[in-house]
Amino acid sequence: MNDATTAVAVDYGDVEAAASRLEGVAHRTPVATSRQFDALAGCTAFFKCENLQRMGAFKFRGAYNALSRLDPAQRAAGVVAFSSGNHAQAVALAGSLLGIPATIVMPADAPAVKVAATRGYGAEVVFYDRAAGQGREEVAGRISREKGATLIPPFDHRDVIAGQGTAAKELIEDVGPLDYLFVSCGGAGLLSGSALAASRLAPAARVVGVEPAAGDDAARSLRTRTLQHVDNPVTIADGARTESLGALTFPLVLRYVHDIVTVTDPQLVEAMRFLWERMKLVVEPTGALATAGVLSGPIDVRARRVGIVLSGGNVDLKAMATLFA
Amino acid sequence: MNDATTAVAVDYGDVEAAASRLEGVAHRTPVATSRQFDALAGCTAFFKCENLQRMGAFKFRGAYNALSRLDPAQRAAGVVAFSSGNHAQAVALAGSLLGIPATIVMPADAPAVKVAATRGYGAEVVFYDRAAGQGREEVAGRISREKGATLIPPFDHRDVIAGQGTAAKELIEDVGPLDYLFVSCGGAGLLSGSALAASRLAPAARVVGVEPAAGDDAARSLRTRTLQHVDNPVTIADGARTESLGALTFPLVLRYVHDIVTVTDPQLVEAMRFLWERMKLVVEPTGALATAGVLSGPIDVRARRVGIVLSGGNVDLKAMATLFA
Repeated sequence: MNDATTAVAVDYGDVEAAASRLEGVAHRTPVATSRQFDALAGCTAFFKCENLQRMGAFKFRGAYNALSRLDPAQRAAGVVAFSSGNHAQAVALAGSLLGIPATIVMPADAPAVKVAATRGYGAEVVFYDRAAGQGREEVAGRISREKGATLIPPFDHRDVIAGQGTAAKELIEDVGPLDYLFVSCGGAGLLSGSALAASRLAPAARVVGVEPAAGDDAARSLRTRTLQHVDNPVTIADGARTESLGALTFPLVLRYVHDIVTVTDPQLVEAMRFLWERMKLVVEPTGALATAGVLSGPIDVRARRVGIVLSGGNVDLKAMATLFA
Repeated sequence: MNDATTAVAVDYGDVEAAASRLEGVAHRTPVATSRQFDALAGCTAFFKCENLQRMGAFKFRGAYNALSRLDPAQRAAGVVAFSSGNHAQAVALAGSLLGIPATIVMPADAPAVKVAATRGYGAEVVFYDRAAGQGREEVAGRISREKGATLIPPFDHRDVIAGQGTAAKELIEDVGPLDYLFVSCGGAGLLSGSALAASRLAPAARVVGVEPAAGDDAARSLRTRTLQHVDNPVTIADGARTESLGALTFPLVLRYVHDIVTVTDPQLVEAMRFLWERMKLVVEPTGALATAGVLSGPIDVRARRVGIVLSGGNVDLKAMATLFA
């Protein structure tokens, strides 16, 4: 990667191009509003319901955009990804729709329901043994070499970032100008893409990333303007347990994101309770980060127009029951 | 009541009039679809999301319609209702919007969260003591006499029935012709109103009520064409624990409803699990009756266009946790 691409690897044009590829394939998800939320937070909030996206999360946008850009030889050789979460299902579904064989590398102890869901979308699942010290990158790398399969990373990839930006693009097109845009932050694929969309379509909006307090590497990275890491953050927001921003997303965050705030797990559960009980929307812990950031964060949003991305809704109700008990 | 009103107390014109009164006040709730549901059930299903209605259930429609028809003297004297469920909140909210004082009679042991919600909408809550053998009708009757307040029954009232019918009216207007319309059935206010709407707007559709197997009085009433009762049915569908159809709803069911099927509590939980996990929609047990009726009922809906009313979404997550554990 040369310096120029490090500085700005993706621009708004890539988001627009991704939107064309996704048209008629991804859902243009609805925007929810809630009088009760507005009364509670003192703002006018617009919730982009990516929990209602195909396979239940925004991840489908980036994966489909990336896979649709492969050339015929690459398509024939297939794709490989390592993930036991939404990225696995996103790559599996995109592969199935585009006729591209997908291999997903998962830990041997991945929940059976996630393995089944990924296979349900037609992907081959290959396990690696965490206990035996096997690395998932290593296994995925071997598959990539043996099959010639293209590795699709979960966030640090320009087509993935551009695809994720299409959700915020739709939100702003649908509701008009915003003062704030709150977005969950793990590896910052969604955050970078959203910030790119806002920079063009809502240039006055302040873009705020929200990450778990236990894994505050992105907040520290933005503050110090130096890439920071965190080891195995313990949080219920399983989609934001990434250890650092990426080589592509970090420069985008530095350039386009105004602030990153953190929320604790109890604050996340309160946000989820509001979304489930009052708004009747099933949102996963990571998907409730942005909402928690508005409700519990340090930013004064009173009387402002606030966009909130509900990034995903894939939960195991049995596991969730313990959160709400 | 004379014979003529017993035969048909409400007609489609009443539903149309209710729709005008509700315009801009009730939400025109969205219609959800699910590829996964269609694959599972083999049909094309359209879910009317009354869980996203104001106060979380279709009940707002009937209550607001009834209250908005009161004359100035009646409005000044206020309204009274007995309910510890959605009807309480519906009358409270409608009263608050119309400036009509509302008194809600609840059992002394009603869940604190429901009492708080009803008071939150501005109603006065009066308790009665079940253990002391006090009847809620008696308490409500006394309030009605003392204050001159108008009693708003939960289902057996022409304006309530007409208001409830507006949800199915919107559904059919939005999605076009249906082969089946599945609706939850307690006292059949929603079912009668929906059947009236379908009789005019989707005359080829078969209207199917779905009630809990433990309280199958409506199914037996339709089959025998004689009003049947059930005592304190034990079911998680707390909105369908009514002991019989009403003097107004029973004739409407006989005339406009084609079938009534029953589902067990485990079938209800399975339907709820699908709605929550796959469709990301929080639906209460009673609100999932129609969905369970399609998934588990005896009717062959394959290749048919099926309307399903998700009637409400008010749940206590702590209580729900035990269902999904």
